[in-house]
Amino acid sequence: MKQSRLYIPTLKQIPNDADSVSHQLMLRAGYVRQVSTGIYAYLPLALSVINKIETIIRQEMDKIEAAEMQLPSLLPAELWEESGRINTYGDDVFKLEDRHKREFILGPTHEETITTVVKEYLNSYKKLPMVLYQMQNKYRDVTSTKYGLLRSREFLMADAYSFSSNSEQLDIIYSQMEQAYRNIFDEIGLDFRAIYGSADLMGGTESKEFSALANIGSDTIAYSDDSDYSANLEMASSKLPDNPTEEKKKSELIKTPDVHTIAALASFLNIASSKIMKAVAYMADDKPILVMIRGDYEVNDVKVKNFLDADLLTVATPDQVTEEFGSIPGFIGPKGLNPDVTVLYDSSLEGLTNFAVGPNIRNKHLVNANFEDLSDSEIEFHDFRVVKEGEASPDGHGVIKFTNGIRVANIYKLGTKFSEDFGANFLNEDGKSEPIIMGSYGISISRLLSAVIEQHNDENGIVWPASIAPYQVHVIPINYDDDTQKKLSDDVVKILKDENFDVLLDDRKERPGVKFADSDLIGIPIRVTVGKKAADSIVELKIRSTAETIEVNKDELVNSVKILLKNQ
Amino acid sequence: MKQSRLYIPTLKQIPNDADSVSHQLMLRAGYVRQVSTGIYAYLPLALSVINKIETIIRQEMDKIEAAEMQLPSLLPAELWEESGRINTYGDDVFKLEDRHKREFILGPTHEETITTVVKEYLNSYKKLPMVLYQMQNKYRDVTSTKYGLLRSREFLMADAYSFSSNSEQLDIIYSQMEQAYRNIFDEIGLDFRAIYGSADLMGGTESKEFSALANIGSDTIAYSDDSDYSANLEMASSKLPDNPTEEKKKSELIKTPDVHTIAALASFLNIASSKIMKAVAYMADDKPILVMIRGDYEVNDVKVKNFLDADLLTVATPDQVTEEFGSIPGFIGPKGLNPDVTVLYDSSLEGLTNFAVGPNIRNKHLVNANFEDLSDSEIEFHDFRVVKEGEASPDGHGVIKFTNGIRVANIYKLGTKFSEDFGANFLNEDGKSEPIIMGSYGISISRLLSAVIEQHNDENGIVWPASIAPYQVHVIPINYDDDTQKKLSDDVVKILKDENFDVLLDDRKERPGVKFADSDLIGIPIRVTVGKKAADSIVELKIRSTAETIEVNKDELVNSVKILLKNQ
Repeated sequence: MKQSRLYIPTLKQIPNDADSVSHQLMLRAGYVRQVSTGIYAYLPLALSVINKIETIIRQEMDKIEAAEMQLPSLLPAELWEESGRINTYGDDVFKLEDRHKREFILGPTHEETITTVVKEYLNSYKKLPMVLYQMQNKYRDVTSTKYGLLRSREFLMADAYSFSSNSEQLDIIYSQMEQAYRNIFDEIGLDFRAIYGSADLMGGTESKEFSALANIGSDTIAYSDDSDYSANLEMASSKLPDNPTEEKKKSELIKTPDVHTIAALASFLNIASSKIMKAVAYMADDKPILVMIRGDYEVNDVKVKNFLDADLLTVATPDQVTEEFGSIPGFIGPKGLNPDVTVLYDSSLEGLTNFAVGPNIRNKHLVNANFEDLSDSEIEFHDFRVVKEGEASPDGHGVIKFTNGIRVANIYKLGTKFSEDFGANFLNEDGKSEPIIMGSYGISISRLLSAVIEQHNDENGIVWPASIAPYQVHVIPINYDDDTQKKLSDDVVKILKDENFDVLLDDRKERPGVKFADSDLIGIPIRVTVGKKAADSIVELKIRSTAETIEVNKDELVNSVKILLKNQ
Repeated sequence: MKQSRLYIPTLKQIPNDADSVSHQLMLRAGYVRQVSTGIYAYLPLALSVINKIETIIRQEMDKIEAAEMQLPSLLPAELWEESGRINTYGDDVFKLEDRHKREFILGPTHEETITTVVKEYLNSYKKLPMVLYQMQNKYRDVTSTKYGLLRSREFLMADAYSFSSNSEQLDIIYSQMEQAYRNIFDEIGLDFRAIYGSADLMGGTESKEFSALANIGSDTIAYSDDSDYSANLEMASSKLPDNPTEEKKKSELIKTPDVHTIAALASFLNIASSKIMKAVAYMADDKPILVMIRGDYEVNDVKVKNFLDADLLTVATPDQVTEEFGSIPGFIGPKGLNPDVTVLYDSSLEGLTNFAVGPNIRNKHLVNANFEDLSDSEIEFHDFRVVKEGEASPDGHGVIKFTNGIRVANIYKLGTKFSEDFGANFLNEDGKSEPIIMGSYGISISRLLSAVIEQHNDENGIVWPASIAPYQVHVIPINYDDDTQKKLSDDVVKILKDENFDVLLDDRKERPGVKFADSDLIGIPIRVTVGKKAADSIVELKIRSTAETIEVNKDELVNSVKILLKNQ
């Protein structure tokens, strides 16, 4: 392709409104332009990268026998009313009416639609499993549209849906899909982690998120420095050392006037905060919940919410502590509360002895307490804790570190939520009707573009991995008006194209410095410069990532390019 | 691909609600499903055909150095307010608001958007010409959604836009694009006509439409049976025989009581209607217009409207004939009208002698009139006529025939309408600012699907041209549970795939009759049946279009398939 016929509006200045490296580079290098807030045009270079990512995705989907199809973007609103997601998604969903005042939405995801489309035909276990996928623009009217393509309102997804007759079939497809996604990201050159996620808005039973490691990521990822373990901070766990064994003492109620915090209590009693049993009072869907945890840890609300399967979890107000718990703010503890209060114990407390704890009496604390002082029945411990960096990985290998991540993909075991909502049933081998067991899988292609650029750039511009570069080779004649250089440049293009390389020829009437700067900015892996030695059929190859150069004769060109590209 | 893993929900019955052969077949053969009125899901077979059409389009766009990009579908409404098309398109445009009450539309076409995206950079004649295209879903809230994909509300287009510095550049691109479209339709196997169209909603200066010949087309096309000439009926012209030469007689005003129609007048005077000068009174944007035409022809309103460059043309009411024209309904003629009436003469009248004409006097007609009796000045003749079948083609070759057509593509010379609306200017060679000269080009991919099926089907189903068939070869084992047949089937699939053929393997546990019927219905060009002779490595090839069969050994398979596909 001739560069003069491609629309590549490079900018000399860093755009003011771009708030991430990837977005700045995509604007500067002429990959995207904003059409409206969070809505972008993909210019030719970006579309070329997208097409290459799509080809890689298709190859992996082929391997696991998934079939491509295409659902509409404009969807009747009743589908989302049926599933209830029109409410859970709220204002994130773009809504509209047609000329007959029928209500429609722009699809943010397609579980409802695919279920209604396939249910007529997937009516027997003989027709299962089936995996269908599509590449499609999705729509979410998000409030924050920072970081360009990372949070756009019209974005490109490759989403897949699986239909199984039993959970073993689902498990197989789920792990095939995970492997396919790993292969895709490896091929694309993305440094990523697959982490256990919360099933959030999908209503499913198990899920994983694929996050690209990046400074600007909005998610905090906890990972082991010596194993595959990683999880979103809100889902991460860790292995704590055992609490020290001590001979149990006799508990004592002592005066602690005006001592309201863990730090103040530790200081007043001259003990470590790890010897204090902290209490955090919540209201979970209007029910009083008290979470007990060691004084040196924080409670992770998401874990509590998931444990209780609650819709809404809020920290109790002082009034609620008094009225709903029957206690005194600052002095709350597990013993002597209103009978309908549920008390939960974090596993950090397991084996703790001779601790301080609130007695539900103003200006007093119980010290040298033990579990026998609090409850007659056996106490169960669960993980309600926010993990900290440096703690041992839960799999026993390495210690936990934190990093930021850009979520680029999800896989979900959906179960039967949508098949039940839409009556997508099949006859099993015994002739009985059962709801189809579904899975849902999605890669955000537009986010991938940003994530790869966040990981692959330098001070001169983008440094594309060869697998998804918009072109593999950039041929730059120093002077395309010079007959010898023009002839060799055209020859070089032809030779490379005949070997199926993607070649961009800079045929513009620009100074060499402008051409080189643009080439570095747009980030094509191999540059072939045709200059003074054109008469001897010698060109210069330059590797974008290392800036190394070599001179080769036209005859050695194909082999050299092949070798160099293999190493990118 | 294994058929068991593709979603192909074939139907045994013809669906009630499908009103065209192509729509019936796409439903029966499991290509599409309706999600809402005029909104369809493309199932795997349809998407495969679409992908092949897109590949053919890309190849042709490459040849003319057009670059692919991707604009958003969700567009800020102010773009369409700026161009005024939010009004001319009216309720055909889907409108919505985002969470901040900003107004958006779903793009029906993208002249406004592309112009605003490219105007910052295409600021010099040195950067022109440029041709950009995209493949994208478009949206039109049409009232009539007959015929499935032929009139859908979400439909797939390949649309292109050209930017030139002068009209010669535009002319070159316009004809390159016409040739590209011709190549695409030839490759796809479409019987089509390129016809001169009206520039309608695009506000351009010249346009052509590409119509597929089909019984269900909503447009009537007039074409020559012996040349390339063709045009929409409303734009078509023809060559009339000269009016007979006669010695001119003296005109005479005679009584014609209660004679109000051409037929009645011809009968009353006992003359042919071709000897009557008929008058049709119109109001064009509130101005009175009288169109004169030979009594045996009809006036073509579109031609009159285009000639006058009028926005609104309506037939005058009897009151208007009296008040605006100063005449009497039924007896109107060109002489003696109010002075502000414009009189137009159709070319069918050229050389007519001794005719009857209305005198603007109640119950009278002027007979044996000649042009000298009507006007002192020279009369100009123009084409305002509806052509008829059997008339001579205007290029002198063949006679005019009528057929129906499905409009599948358009090309428009837009001129500067949009560049002026959005201030897309460039500096010319003299350093002066001028608006960019634009062109707009579009193929409806979803309509193409229907149009090809309308032209390529038989009583058993679809008969795809090999170039866009969802798969080229359908391998059908009679019994896939039989080890010998299974082994040979898998071998055949591998051999064909290694030669880059698209192969579908029917691995379902169905009776052979069901498999054969489904294969004919979905229309794959070559069927390879693996049956009893599997032990001898012999398979049967069947050609979908001719139903011919031959037996070949596995070793001859590739060559046979190559030869057979070449002839499809």
